[in-house]
Amino acid sequence: MKREIFYPESVAIIGASQDTGKAGHQLMKSLLDEGFTGTIYPVHPREEEILGLKCYKTLKDIEDTVDLIIISIPAFAVLDVMQEAAERGDVKTAIIISAGFSETAIPERVDLEKEIVELAHKNNIRIFGPNCNGFINTENKFTTSFAPGQNLSPGDIGFITQSGSFGGSVMMMAAEEPKSLGFNKWSHLGNMADVTNMEILESYETDPKINVVGLYMEGVREGRELMEIGSRVSREKPVLTIKVGRTELGSKAALSHTGTLAGSDQVYDTAFKQSGIVRVETIEELVDGLKATSMLPRASSSKIAILTECGGPGIISMDEIDNDDVAELAHVSTETVEKLKEALPPMAMVCKPDGYIDMTAAALEKEHADAMRLLLDDPGVDSLLVISLPPTFLPAEGVAEVIAEVAAEYDKPVAACFMKGEDMEPSRKYLEEHGVPTFETPERSARALINNIKCSLEIKSDRVRGLKPQDKLLFNKDKFSNLITEFTPEERNPLEPEVYDFLEKYEIDLLPHSFVASRDEALAKAEELGYPLVMKVVSPQVIHKSDVGGVKLNLKNSEEVGKAYDGLMADIKKNVPNADIKGVILTPMAAGGLEVIIGVTRDPQFGPTVMFGLGGVFVEVFKDISFRIAPFTEEDAREMIEETRAYQLLKGVRGEKPKDIEALAELLVKIGDLVTLNPAIKELDLNPVMVQEDGFTILDARIITD
Amino acid sequence: MKREIFYPESVAIIGASQDTGKAGHQLMKSLLDEGFTGTIYPVHPREEEILGLKCYKTLKDIEDTVDLIIISIPAFAVLDVMQEAAERGDVKTAIIISAGFSETAIPERVDLEKEIVELAHKNNIRIFGPNCNGFINTENKFTTSFAPGQNLSPGDIGFITQSGSFGGSVMMMAAEEPKSLGFNKWSHLGNMADVTNMEILESYETDPKINVVGLYMEGVREGRELMEIGSRVSREKPVLTIKVGRTELGSKAALSHTGTLAGSDQVYDTAFKQSGIVRVETIEELVDGLKATSMLPRASSSKIAILTECGGPGIISMDEIDNDDVAELAHVSTETVEKLKEALPPMAMVCKPDGYIDMTAAALEKEHADAMRLLLDDPGVDSLLVISLPPTFLPAEGVAEVIAEVAAEYDKPVAACFMKGEDMEPSRKYLEEHGVPTFETPERSARALINNIKCSLEIKSDRVRGLKPQDKLLFNKDKFSNLITEFTPEERNPLEPEVYDFLEKYEIDLLPHSFVASRDEALAKAEELGYPLVMKVVSPQVIHKSDVGGVKLNLKNSEEVGKAYDGLMADIKKNVPNADIKGVILTPMAAGGLEVIIGVTRDPQFGPTVMFGLGGVFVEVFKDISFRIAPFTEEDAREMIEETRAYQLLKGVRGEKPKDIEALAELLVKIGDLVTLNPAIKELDLNPVMVQEDGFTILDARIITD
Repeated sequence: MKREIFYPESVAIIGASQDTGKAGHQLMKSLLDEGFTGTIYPVHPREEEILGLKCYKTLKDIEDTVDLIIISIPAFAVLDVMQEAAERGDVKTAIIISAGFSETAIPERVDLEKEIVELAHKNNIRIFGPNCNGFINTENKFTTSFAPGQNLSPGDIGFITQSGSFGGSVMMMAAEEPKSLGFNKWSHLGNMADVTNMEILESYETDPKINVVGLYMEGVREGRELMEIGSRVSREKPVLTIKVGRTELGSKAALSHTGTLAGSDQVYDTAFKQSGIVRVETIEELVDGLKATSMLPRASSSKIAILTECGGPGIISMDEIDNDDVAELAHVSTETVEKLKEALPPMAMVCKPDGYIDMTAAALEKEHADAMRLLLDDPGVDSLLVISLPPTFLPAEGVAEVIAEVAAEYDKPVAACFMKGEDMEPSRKYLEEHGVPTFETPERSARALINNIKCSLEIKSDRVRGLKPQDKLLFNKDKFSNLITEFTPEERNPLEPEVYDFLEKYEIDLLPHSFVASRDEALAKAEELGYPLVMKVVSPQVIHKSDVGGVKLNLKNSEEVGKAYDGLMADIKKNVPNADIKGVILTPMAAGGLEVIIGVTRDPQFGPTVMFGLGGVFVEVFKDISFRIAPFTEEDAREMIEETRAYQLLKGVRGEKPKDIEALAELLVKIGDLVTLNPAIKELDLNPVMVQEDGFTILDARIITD
Repeated sequence: MKREIFYPESVAIIGASQDTGKAGHQLMKSLLDEGFTGTIYPVHPREEEILGLKCYKTLKDIEDTVDLIIISIPAFAVLDVMQEAAERGDVKTAIIISAGFSETAIPERVDLEKEIVELAHKNNIRIFGPNCNGFINTENKFTTSFAPGQNLSPGDIGFITQSGSFGGSVMMMAAEEPKSLGFNKWSHLGNMADVTNMEILESYETDPKINVVGLYMEGVREGRELMEIGSRVSREKPVLTIKVGRTELGSKAALSHTGTLAGSDQVYDTAFKQSGIVRVETIEELVDGLKATSMLPRASSSKIAILTECGGPGIISMDEIDNDDVAELAHVSTETVEKLKEALPPMAMVCKPDGYIDMTAAALEKEHADAMRLLLDDPGVDSLLVISLPPTFLPAEGVAEVIAEVAAEYDKPVAACFMKGEDMEPSRKYLEEHGVPTFETPERSARALINNIKCSLEIKSDRVRGLKPQDKLLFNKDKFSNLITEFTPEERNPLEPEVYDFLEKYEIDLLPHSFVASRDEALAKAEELGYPLVMKVVSPQVIHKSDVGGVKLNLKNSEEVGKAYDGLMADIKKNVPNADIKGVILTPMAAGGLEVIIGVTRDPQFGPTVMFGLGGVFVEVFKDISFRIAPFTEEDAREMIEETRAYQLLKGVRGEKPKDIEALAELLVKIGDLVTLNPAIKELDLNPVMVQEDGFTILDARIITD
């Protein structure tokens, strides 16, 4: 999408109205009130003038150029207007505010939306919406939002939302900050019938006026697009996202809201992680994070020191930092500790624990200044949080001045927590006007600094981000694509021996195994393989083999193999009468090890996704699993293992020797690569995989292709 | 503590000052500014008059009665003032603002504090502090807080804090609400050298002016006191608590703040649960929860319906509710659903999912009113959350009026989420003045309703709360107390056979077992017990038996028993040369089952605490454990099991039969009772316990008494 779309010079409002209760009136009023720098043409079939401007009966009647049209009329009349716009030939963009299209899931409304989009495509008109709030550009004071209480303070934030009211709320909250938080652009795409949130993200990527990106997300149409674009943007600019539908019910509500299938929240979480997008949990955390990243320099490490004169709030911020996986308390040198003790009141608690200084209410301006300088001079300290609730005998303004003065001397992130309240407002305003972001509570202050750290580390990091490039796959694309089709000749899923043959093509270590079609062959092959053995039925109709007597374990000699064969056949015939038994597979009994599972599903948004977790009954009970969207690197695979508790077991607990994590990581990478090369694979399960000190054993494998 | 303390009629301020930079000045100014209804006597050695009032050189010089003294002078001078107060004979309370006592951990300062308290006790003077902000009583406008921006709006909340700045922050935030949140009393105890937070809680219990209690807690001196008093108060009034030091570092910071040993946060969590105290996580959640419980009627069920015109914020509130263990979405009847569909715009999403209604931005005042009435008339709906961000074409005030009007018609909890922002302020104020609490974000709105539900259900519930009464113990106190001493004759911990003998006294099912002191005895007893058997060494010096060859498994006959005996003796002599081997214990090999552990520790604050969890390596890796403070009921024991993931395994997964949860619960209760009756037990471990479909098997037991 071209960035110019955000800079229309002439705008027609279809549905402009005298009636203050109509969106068309308010939209026009906002443009006038905000001082939109372009020309406005109201369009209404019967009015002569609206809000002091000449009104046109139809779009056709406007003689001068029209860059953009805003449509706020009933859904059924939109197509005609779009036809008129097409005929004009000058309209580049249509913002369709009107609702009542595909979001209703009514077939004719869905079709109507399609027809409108087709018409627009043919005529090179880009559409925002329908069912949207359009966009805001604070440079030219353009806005089609009808959220109340907006304040188009200019700034460097680019925002994208899938909910008009959420986006409006963020603007309202931003306007309420001591110093209004400044936005550059804000976009709401509604049904995303044409322009998508990802296209906007891409346009923000190269927008020189945008330094920080915020996203409200319910879902995306194309997960891989999110990863591709997100990975690029997060290298350059902080990208903070709130993704709703975290729970099952929330996800259902999201589905009926904009119709984007929400997909698994855990897969989204993985996608954000792989792409360097920082996920936040609440509206407040999003606004605070945008403020912190917009106002602060990038952090160069994860170390935060806390300087407080309030014990309680100080402890709360400690809890928040200690609870986070990335941020950590600063390590203050013993030299600095000694100097702090000299500079501070005798009751002060200095570095108990390390990185935490409670000056107590006895600290005045000088103590604040001295302690801040000592901490910021220490190379062990990167970010600094100053928590202050100046008592009535110490003027808050004086403390604010000192904090701002010292913060300005350093290129390290310094934030201040001044509690919410009328009395603190002037000090907070002073601080923010002098470059120090302030936050209302210790929890929120700590989280804001943490989110600045996370975004900063993403920008600094040179890790492979997003999906592994196709040319880094372990297997040659020309030779190794679509091999699965060779192993599934009929209209059915591959059988276990076929799955093994397929996996072997990708150099995946397997136990020796033989597929045999008769009792005699079984007896002969058993001698070749050696004992003890496992025998498993091979039949397209038998899925849960153990449940129906289809697995015979620990066969120690020829006689037992014979007996097992007979027993297995009898059991299957009894339990699955319609089973077409192709034969049995023989493998040696496996060595021990830790039981894990590896699975692959195709996520509706993100495509092939590999899952890793602890095996056995614990999968269901502890849900100790992690995901990566394929293909991914070995570094990703290792992180994927480390994210689970199973990792603790793999490393070895209670003096046990560590298991072969390297081999497991390599297996995960191979699985990710092979499912990427075989789009026909819908599901793949290696379950269980026993991981030993040296290597692993795949005990069962299953692929679904239909 | 007598409630009268909060109503002094005459107050002397020791350390009153002309200097606005002194606490003594601000304290006096606050009393005057707020309009304290009693008499104020400033005391200063050299001043004639302060802030227009006659100043006294010493406390002795005041001729009229002095009920309460406020002390704000350096620590070393406090004892003399207390001596003067004692000599007067009329002073009932001293609020010692001054810091520099036991919190410094300097021995002479600790002693000074003790001396002051002893003097006060002898002379019937109660002390708040030292190192405190004293108290606020909005009835008589008394305050010794020096937090800025207070607003002593009267109301029905009683607050207790262990951090002056936290308590001040809560007051500031409360004052910032659209309608100031009203408090009745507020107390900060500082070092709690005399009056403790628990004494205050007890006084709030019976205070007729207090309907809702809020607590900020770093720790308590006497955990069982918290449970006893908390259990009583939570039956009558909502009790909301924030307890800081959730993490290891936070807990360390808390320790250096007020010196109360924070103890295990998980045990505090258990204590709150057992006592009916509702724990919140953030300052905002606390303020919101106090507002909700103070303004709303009690909820009669956990069912919440959401009525929104904003999709995004609606979904966020759904996530919050679905994530909570107690609250749930309302079940709306099909009849109501049909009526809602008729009443609402065609784009509205009605009960997708159940209990969630997104009216879309097309909903005007009438739609709000109709939908609210339909939902509140439905018996499936209890609490109702209305989320609104009226678009610019719909006046927010009109929506607010409608919400307030309908809410007033019902005795069900109704809360409104109106986003933060100047434009919403008048509507929020209107709502709150008409009894509908409002909250700034959907997350916070949902949490406020959830916390009202939790407090309400606690008040409704008739479950045994706190500790099980002594007369409900399973064992007669006279006969069953201190039995452990009989089984530990020497100066050492009991040995395994002694532990078994002890446990048998409390009717705990054990495997048959024999303690034998010689090889011959072993062979003879083995024949009696039957095979297969386990042999374990008995020696005070051998703790981890398996690691040193002290356990021999699966002994199938007399010969194997003999061999095992010889091997065990040889192994122990080699591996633990100094071991005094008392003999061996023989038990049958155990049946299978699910491996769990039961442990007992003595928490420094809460005393004997029973732990239950999944056994094996999973204890360390998954930390799947729960606690109860002993003694507790069988209902507690069942809940304790249900809190763990192990419960899923006990119920049976993948078609396995359920294990004997009843027997396990009974065992937990017995253990809780027996450690209560045996204070000499410091630690007890049953590890592992195998739980079978019918009963359980304790495979090892250990008790530490020293």
